Amino acid sequence: MLTVYSDAHHAHHAQFELIDGKLVPPFEHPRRAEMLLAQVQQANLGEVLPAKAVGLEPILRVHDPGYVAFLQTAWQEWVAAHGDETDALPLNWATRTMRHDRIPETIDGKLSYYSFDAGTPIMAGTWHAATAAARVALTAQQLITDGAAAAFGLCRPPGHHAARDFYGGYCFLNNAAIAAQAFRDAGAARVAILDVDYHHGNGTQAIFYDRSDVLFVSIHGHPKQEYPYFLGYEDERGSGAGEGYTYNYPLLWGTDWGMYEEALTDALQHIQRYAPDVMVISLGVDTFEKDPISKFRLRGADYHRMGAAIARLGIPTLFVMEGGYAVEEIGVNAVNVLLGFEAAS
Amino acid sequence: MLTVYSDAHHAHHAQFELIDGKLVPPFEHPRRAEMLLAQVQQANLGEVLPAKAVGLEPILRVHDPGYVAFLQTAWQEWVAAHGDETDALPLNWATRTMRHDRIPETIDGKLSYYSFDAGTPIMAGTWHAATAAARVALTAQQLITDGAAAAFGLCRPPGHHAARDFYGGYCFLNNAAIAAQAFRDAGAARVAILDVDYHHGNGTQAIFYDRSDVLFVSIHGHPKQEYPYFLGYEDERGSGAGEGYTYNYPLLWGTDWGMYEEALTDALQHIQRYAPDVMVISLGVDTFEKDPISKFRLRGADYHRMGAAIARLGIPTLFVMEGGYAVEEIGVNAVNVLLGFEAAS
Repeated sequence: MLTVYSDAHHAHHAQFELIDGKLVPPFEHPRRAEMLLAQVQQANLGEVLPAKAVGLEPILRVHDPGYVAFLQTAWQEWVAAHGDETDALPLNWATRTMRHDRIPETIDGKLSYYSFDAGTPIMAGTWHAATAAARVALTAQQLITDGAAAAFGLCRPPGHHAARDFYGGYCFLNNAAIAAQAFRDAGAARVAILDVDYHHGNGTQAIFYDRSDVLFVSIHGHPKQEYPYFLGYEDERGSGAGEGYTYNYPLLWGTDWGMYEEALTDALQHIQRYAPDVMVISLGVDTFEKDPISKFRLRGADYHRMGAAIARLGIPTLFVMEGGYAVEEIGVNAVNVLLGFEAAS
Repeated sequence: MLTVYSDAHHAHHAQFELIDGKLVPPFEHPRRAEMLLAQVQQANLGEVLPAKAVGLEPILRVHDPGYVAFLQTAWQEWVAAHGDETDALPLNWATRTMRHDRIPETIDGKLSYYSFDAGTPIMAGTWHAATAAARVALTAQQLITDGAAAAFGLCRPPGHHAARDFYGGYCFLNNAAIAAQAFRDAGAARVAILDVDYHHGNGTQAIFYDRSDVLFVSIHGHPKQEYPYFLGYEDERGSGAGEGYTYNYPLLWGTDWGMYEEALTDALQHIQRYAPDVMVISLGVDTFEKDPISKFRLRGADYHRMGAAIARLGIPTLFVMEGGYAVEEIGVNAVNVLLGFEAAS
């Protein structure tokens, strides 16, 4: 399997993140991608290709133009207002009874408007790294459009929490959604997205919620227990033309492979019935038993089984990297999915 | 003028707050109330009375029972999950495309659901202090219901950002709204609230937005520039039965007394036409030129003028303390409003 990777992710390196009421070294760290790349090479998964240059068009097929413009200049505006000593963080959010129809003019207001959490800092290199991650996904997508059976987009920062017009959960541009839309624009009639990250892919779901041409299926920590809390329930099934094209499998803390496999089998059956031309896997390995911020109990060998189960559908498959914060094992676990896929293909 | 004060506010003392991307000593600090009390005494404003015991009923007339139950146990739940080393802070919020109809079961999820900003920590004494502030407001309200022409509820923590079911902006229980409702429940037909805090009183506005029996009028930093960003525009005029009973005066950074007085005069005319039985002033003095987090340019003597203008309406008036973060001057400025009121009464 070919992997696509870009060094540009190093430009996004948070000073800290706010979690459990304190500032701690960031879980979403450049070393994650380095460990992934090292394991891709050590396991001889296949050649590693650089990301190709791509304009903003495929990003704007998924994201709001105002949001994209904001991301491009947010750091400069932050520095003009507050200096460059600290990363840019928002302070408040438009919840119940508040308006969403007016976009503030000041950078603090814009950060608040265009975000949904307090743990996703913006810094000098964020836009550079985020667009590079989108280019990684798009380059890998092109490999499949050109005939490859599978490819791995080693994206960082991740993307599945980013919606049409807001960021959060370490995500700025929704790499998986951008790739799925690019598949559609390249002629695929139906695209399925399977999100196996521990956290619900709220951004991806929202982007395709009213569409039948992109199926979204997610297996994740139950939102009544887990971030992002406010999306990912079983009764979310899509709306309008998209009704019946979203499936959620919220699973409780402590879920092990036995319980997980049951959901995965069901999820894959839905995808099979949909008969997509191509499949995008939002690949998070924070379902791992030793993940520092997650509470599932998957083990190393389970990732091999996951890859094999996905391969049995026989659909061209793009793997897009999402989360996973047990940094020492992230490479082994993610590459196990890919090796399992290859072995069963 | 009588003042009501409770020492209990000391129990709410944040370790830090997150502002401009860094953790800093909290602006909303117990010393604020101490400076206010000292100036009340030094200026011989009048006797200082303790807060009377009050049950939860008047609080539940304004706030959601689930929210009140959450506030009562939030710290214990936080400690059970994360220990008592750090204050409890939320992490993410339900913005566009997210659900508000399911309340998470875990404390991190509940903090996220019941809040709207990342700068309002909960600690061991928060519930105790917040209910004491509500009791301060209610005790002062009772003085007026019993015949006093004016009273000062020296509340801390403040209240006007707290809505029916969420906290934020240093506010947990909406002291002014609770007092306004108590006036209604004690027989006042019409209550007017004038909010002169630098920040829009989004919580108060939302609580009474669809009601004609409580007029809400606010003069504040324009939401296109200032926190809380997502409420406080001029076109918000109330809804349903409340249509025409909300007035907002959003003013731009740099506003001085000349510009402010124009808005105040207009605001007071609306209140006069409404002919309320009683008036509640949400008294913030963060409109002060030296306030560290605000950008208006009011000076010391302007607060005297503000109090005099309010007094000229000749309506029984409850002053409820809200914001003001220039700690050294907070007492002088707030008491200047009260002295100006007394002099013109």
